Amino acid sequence: MEIAVLRYGHRDIRDYRVTTHCCLVSRALGASKIIVEGNEDQNIRKSVEGVTKNWGSGFEIEFTDSWRKTITEYKKKKFFVMHLTMYGLPLQKQIRRMRKNKKILVIIGSQKVTAEVYQKADQNISVTQQPHSEIAALAIALDWLQKGKELEKKFKNPKIKIIPQEKGKKVMKK
Amino acid sequence: MEIAVLRYGHRDIRDYRVTTHCCLVSRALGASKIIVEGNEDQNIRKSVEGVTKNWGSGFEIEFTDSWRKTITEYKKKKFFVMHLTMYGLPLQKQIRRMRKNKKILVIIGSQKVTAEVYQKADQNISVTQQPHSEIAALAIALDWLQKGKELEKKFKNPKIKIIPQEKGKKVMKK
Repeated sequence: MEIAVLRYGHRDIRDYRVTTHCCLVSRALGASKIIVEGNEDQNIRKSVEGVTKNWGSGFEIEFTDSWRKTITEYKKKKFFVMHLTMYGLPLQKQIRRMRKNKKILVIIGSQKVTAEVYQKADQNISVTQQPHSEIAALAIALDWLQKGKELEKKFKNPKIKIIPQEKGKKVMKK
Repeated sequence: MEIAVLRYGHRDIRDYRVTTHCCLVSRALGASKIIVEGNEDQNIRKSVEGVTKNWGSGFEIEFTDSWRKTITEYKKKKFFVMHLTMYGLPLQKQIRRMRKNKKILVIIGSQKVTAEVYQKADQNISVTQQPHSEIAALAIALDWLQKGKELEKKFKNPKIKIIPQEKGKKVMKK
């Protein structure tokens, strides 16, 4: 399954940390790309490219000034558009159907998402109907879509690699 | 299973948004309490209590000025202490053993966690060995511990309730 993530409504500076988390979660949990909609934030690009350089490649970040164009483009490329929102249908009830897609564009919003996104999405999906975090919703959706297999993902050409330990830290550096 | 979360090293203002996400994720995904270590941030308390009041009760927030005391206290209360860190043993390999505990204290850090936490934890657990987000790691750990059942959790006495929809938003208010 090929997964891309669209981060809707990024606001420069204010959203820096949360959007960076969204980017790194997308990468760590098996997506191949994130498209950030909103202000082109060079600090985010640098953070993500720094991680990719040190921890392994195979993940891209792009910016767009139009989520509409991105959705249209990905629909043309046969991506199923799954919008994560607390108002959508429960993930656990829709997951089997979602897993049948070979390509998925996962949309995650910030504060307010316009009604048009709900209409344009192929499916609106909720990770609980409680207010929490788009970072958590994204993580759980990626994990369920890939049945936990993404936790075993290997990255290409890492300079830094962690060797899991009972206690303490073990890091291999090239 | 009873789950409490300890947020290590909260820094006032700087960490407001990320710590708030940690609190709301803890609540939405089945923990009964979060203990925030660091500056007592009244805005976070207000945000969490506002959500509890409107969306349903059964979740508490506390502050502590000493993570050491909190760990000692929870160990006395027979909580298993599970520290989430990219340096720990992989979640997917340890999860069966973790699920045998009736009470778990999940520790999530911020930037830097002192070596003593690694030593005091009953188990150091990684959600991938890649850098990403403590919010995502917490979400996935809570989901795996409870086998996804937490997504069905009902909250007591909500004033607001969402009715899942294919498109758009449906909210019931008391």
